[in-house]
Amino acid sequence: MANPTAAMLVIGDEILSGRTRDSNMHFLAGELTRHGIRLMEARVVADDQAAIVAAVNALRGAYDHLFTSGGIGPTHDDITADAIAAAFGVPITHRADAMALLQAHYDRAGLEFNDARKRMARIPDGARLIDNPVSTAPGFTLGNVHVMAGVPKIFEAMVASVMPTLTGGDPLLSQSLRVNRGEGEIAAAFGELAAAYPDLGMGSYPFVQNGAHGTNLVIRGTNAARIDEAMTRLAALFG
Amino acid sequence: MANPTAAMLVIGDEILSGRTRDSNMHFLAGELTRHGIRLMEARVVADDQAAIVAAVNALRGAYDHLFTSGGIGPTHDDITADAIAAAFGVPITHRADAMALLQAHYDRAGLEFNDARKRMARIPDGARLIDNPVSTAPGFTLGNVHVMAGVPKIFEAMVASVMPTLTGGDPLLSQSLRVNRGEGEIAAAFGELAAAYPDLGMGSYPFVQNGAHGTNLVIRGTNAARIDEAMTRLAALFG
Repeated sequence: MANPTAAMLVIGDEILSGRTRDSNMHFLAGELTRHGIRLMEARVVADDQAAIVAAVNALRGAYDHLFTSGGIGPTHDDITADAIAAAFGVPITHRADAMALLQAHYDRAGLEFNDARKRMARIPDGARLIDNPVSTAPGFTLGNVHVMAGVPKIFEAMVASVMPTLTGGDPLLSQSLRVNRGEGEIAAAFGELAAAYPDLGMGSYPFVQNGAHGTNLVIRGTNAARIDEAMTRLAALFG
Repeated sequence: MANPTAAMLVIGDEILSGRTRDSNMHFLAGELTRHGIRLMEARVVADDQAAIVAAVNALRGAYDHLFTSGGIGPTHDDITADAIAAAFGVPITHRADAMALLQAHYDRAGLEFNDARKRMARIPDGARLIDNPVSTAPGFTLGNVHVMAGVPKIFEAMVASVMPTLTGGDPLLSQSLRVNRGEGEIAAAFGELAAAYPDLGMGSYPFVQNGAHGTNLVIRGTNAARIDEAMTRLAALFG
């Protein structure tokens, strides 16, 4: 069975300026792998509507799913919801169900539900809300695009809300072998092994520890028996 | 003066599978900001020639510089140099100057300069080598594309080698104010300030500390006097 494919789009000036180090991509990559969804590509763009629209339309057309993070808060630089509506060519309004969630949240907190906070209820027509158990303001799914917050704790909670709604594929498995030799020593035999198993992915990741070169060799795929077989041959070569 | 623009392309299955967390993008973002070069977009693609070629050609056409990381080692999954040659439509060979650097390196180490290690001397025609003071195997610059290693220590050393060869722009400056109020409270006034300074970028980054909501407000630009003026108004609003 083929695995569904996905892309991620990280939205935010603060990532590209170096102010903030993104952690959402790494988190999502791990979650998708566990769910058998193959992350094929990721992009980072600024808080710029044209850049967001272009990336959204390129990625939602190329892959089964697109996950976005960032830009759905209450301030003027939060333009993701409007950009998604523009990318799909649909209207965007303050939606009643999102308004009700937020009104109740701010009532409980004793805070004014002002215009800035109402901005977080702007949802493109046709979208399904994504639950936000951390801070209430919802994300949303429109078509195959899942729009989530940039704050890592909220992003992670939204991913947990979305994942069960998606059809996964065969689990993406991997095994690795750590060898105390540099890449240049193992490359020829490892390359031959990779050529013998075109259905598996094989990657080589060098490291230096206490001044000595070593390599982590990783075999990835969906067929556990084939991975076991290739690992046995790998261990015989370098174990 | 307009600032030069740049993009980054991270190449590697291990980032998209969640095995490895990329750190090169964050490092490069900070270095470019210090050099007055605006990082406009970043992408991550797999070790797949078609994906690399498509991304390289899109990004080198859209921005003044493209920086890549990953895929220039000695193993079969290191396909970046060949992909760059394909993207430019130029031949790639074992180049004499790179061969000489590597031969001397392995002679010093008492290691065989085998075919896998010779792979690291494959350089597209017309490229200029990028110095690698960590492990010798060079990166290269072809046109406006700077091709560097994925291992962070080597990537960072290559960035240090390349930066002085690039024409920077006015330094990209930023100042920030931390306020002990949630974004929803400051959004309206902060948005008005941003509208009054269209030449500056203003961003709002919420945080929660000890259960209380706070926001970091950031003002970015190249004109220090304008930033000072806007920060004075910001401090008067929320200080």
